[in-house]
Amino acid sequence: MARIILSVNAGSSSVKVSVYSAELHQSPVQLAEAQVSGLSAPPVQLTYARDGKTVAKNKEVGREAISQSDAFDILVKTLVDDADLTQIKSKDDVGIICHRIVHGGDFSRPQLITTETKNHIEDLNDLAPLHNANSLPIVRACLRDFSAARNVACFDSQFHSTLPPHIRTYPIDPDITKRNRLRKYGFHGISYAFITRTAAEFLGKPRDRVNLIALHLGSGSSACAIKGGKSWDTSMGLTPLAGLPGATRSGSVDPSLVFHYVANAGRLSSSSTKDLHISRAEEILNKDAGWKALTGTTDFGDIIASSSSSPEKKLAFDLVVDRICGFVGSYYVSLHGQVDALVFAGGIGEKGAELRAAVVGHLACLGFKLDEGKNEAEGKEAVVRDISGEEVRHRVLVCQTDEQMEMAKTCAEEEEFW
Amino acid sequence: MARIILSVNAGSSSVKVSVYSAELHQSPVQLAEAQVSGLSAPPVQLTYARDGKTVAKNKEVGREAISQSDAFDILVKTLVDDADLTQIKSKDDVGIICHRIVHGGDFSRPQLITTETKNHIEDLNDLAPLHNANSLPIVRACLRDFSAARNVACFDSQFHSTLPPHIRTYPIDPDITKRNRLRKYGFHGISYAFITRTAAEFLGKPRDRVNLIALHLGSGSSACAIKGGKSWDTSMGLTPLAGLPGATRSGSVDPSLVFHYVANAGRLSSSSTKDLHISRAEEILNKDAGWKALTGTTDFGDIIASSSSSPEKKLAFDLVVDRICGFVGSYYVSLHGQVDALVFAGGIGEKGAELRAAVVGHLACLGFKLDEGKNEAEGKEAVVRDISGEEVRHRVLVCQTDEQMEMAKTCAEEEEFW
Repeated sequence: MARIILSVNAGSSSVKVSVYSAELHQSPVQLAEAQVSGLSAPPVQLTYARDGKTVAKNKEVGREAISQSDAFDILVKTLVDDADLTQIKSKDDVGIICHRIVHGGDFSRPQLITTETKNHIEDLNDLAPLHNANSLPIVRACLRDFSAARNVACFDSQFHSTLPPHIRTYPIDPDITKRNRLRKYGFHGISYAFITRTAAEFLGKPRDRVNLIALHLGSGSSACAIKGGKSWDTSMGLTPLAGLPGATRSGSVDPSLVFHYVANAGRLSSSSTKDLHISRAEEILNKDAGWKALTGTTDFGDIIASSSSSPEKKLAFDLVVDRICGFVGSYYVSLHGQVDALVFAGGIGEKGAELRAAVVGHLACLGFKLDEGKNEAEGKEAVVRDISGEEVRHRVLVCQTDEQMEMAKTCAEEEEFW
Repeated sequence: MARIILSVNAGSSSVKVSVYSAELHQSPVQLAEAQVSGLSAPPVQLTYARDGKTVAKNKEVGREAISQSDAFDILVKTLVDDADLTQIKSKDDVGIICHRIVHGGDFSRPQLITTETKNHIEDLNDLAPLHNANSLPIVRACLRDFSAARNVACFDSQFHSTLPPHIRTYPIDPDITKRNRLRKYGFHGISYAFITRTAAEFLGKPRDRVNLIALHLGSGSSACAIKGGKSWDTSMGLTPLAGLPGATRSGSVDPSLVFHYVANAGRLSSSSTKDLHISRAEEILNKDAGWKALTGTTDFGDIIASSSSSPEKKLAFDLVVDRICGFVGSYYVSLHGQVDALVFAGGIGEKGAELRAAVVGHLACLGFKLDEGKNEAEGKEAVVRDISGEEVRHRVLVCQTDEQMEMAKTCAEEEEFW
């Protein structure tokens, strides 16, 4: 019997919910998707599509900043109140709710959220308070209000549980790293799982034999070396701060930097609470840095478009290209050059043709080359498309990654969650 | 007329002095070299050679920890008291003293130390208190006690003054970075200048046309991309902490890491003084990390030798190889594959044949290959030797870098310092 799956993806400024109809061991079919955005920067807006058709687009639903839980309430109400979404007449029609949780610690697979795992998942908040805190209130609300549903935690770190010890280890005191659970975890893993699956299919290779360098580029950006279908290295670390710069995130910088940036960097941020300890340093590097700090905008599309007229935007563009190329070179070596494809994904990776051209332009020495026409073509239909030039050693792909679909698919595959 | 140049190289646990006879615009001739080691880990030992012959080797000169200044006094007394070193009968025979200073801020060339530049150089202490503090007391002693000498500051950062803006910029608030002078500076630059000069000569190329990936590997380690004879990128950052791990240094780690490693990472270390502000975090990452934290030894030779029998040492070895290969891949891309040679230098780079074999083994996909016999041969005579295999796209060299000689040479070339 078909069940309704909700995939919930809560970020710092938006909450997305996708609705699927699924049978066990079958690919879920999307019924609707809805998003509330502008949580921290009002107006708060709702976008809603059913059966692939837009029902509401950027409809203002509030003028004050709201929480992720409030946004989720708006989304649920939208779905329940929509008479044309016949599959959800009440909350009781929802069978499975899968939640994207950024930091999953040592979990290598999704977890059914029970009282026991809920406590464990809440403990992980210590490792990534800025990130997990977006999801946990929604998890609690779902456990309370959706009495017929099973809740599943899908972790952004779980895909990276295969990182080998010499790559995931930080060279500091092993007793303390063990006690405090300090190692490279990596994130964007739900996206990398989607990318690996769909790119392998596209390339006609078994998933466990595909080697990729994948770039998930968005307001948070990362790179991943995928070897035999598994994560071999990734640019984010203990937290999502390390690696590539993001819209408001510094990425990797000299670990001394923040102590020279602000006095007493280690003091608690004023946004800390009793349960949530965030140093001023981590707040600065996660929220006051990145390309917004250099240019004033979080919109990388604007940075691409204006980089010929604005020296600040040119600098930000060149800096991001440089850091991306650095990881590609590094991962090319760690995969010993056995790379089936370089894959661009994420909002910026999918839309930023100029960024892709700049990055791949630097990679000619490794045997990557674009077809300019294919790179610039809009490819909205295909999940994966090939933008490589002719006679290349390695292919270049663009993948429309879909974290909600990946979560729903994972849930549909596991009898345990039914 | 020939002058006597002293090159002084003060580190955290040793002070080295090399003595040269030099004429303006001529290559200096080394007369003697002396080193006091074990400053922070007694016994304190003296090693002294004159005319290439050992006079004292690991001779115990104290059982208590001593300062860099005290070590310098021992070295000067050794030189003055040596009747066979006829060129130095008293301190007044010394014409030029060049001092290796780690952090030179925006200085792009060596500076004659006057009252004015001395203050400026002392201000730089803020940026690298753990590093510049080793040299400054010796500079002060020389200004006071060597009345006939000119003192010259040679900066480890000056070679990297050519880093392009998109590489040297950190993506954080430009007003604050400007005010607090926060950017990638890079270090080991005196060594990279020596490497560039001697590798270009060895390759028979003009210095301004040579492209290298250079690795200075020692208890502090870094990598440098050299484009047209100039520094294009380097792995150390605002301070020497960033980049590769060292004996007691973490290298690049998630900037959040230290806040999860120790409570209140930003508080001042107990080794801070009124003039010297060091956060506990910076102290941990510089002094309590690196391969010593993983294995218990600072001796990388021991790690190489024991890595087949010790899982901890194997992990440390593999981790260091991985991080080195990452930078080589990254710099290969940023040099667009136009690389004349990969150069190994520094104590570990010169002696660690197994490390070189492991690194270059991972680089076959870029066209690097070793000749095993040449790699394993001792090459004490040659400043630069080629260890590449046959028919390779890029050469692999070993360079016996000599920072003291590079400083003396720089001083001998500049009329201003005479």
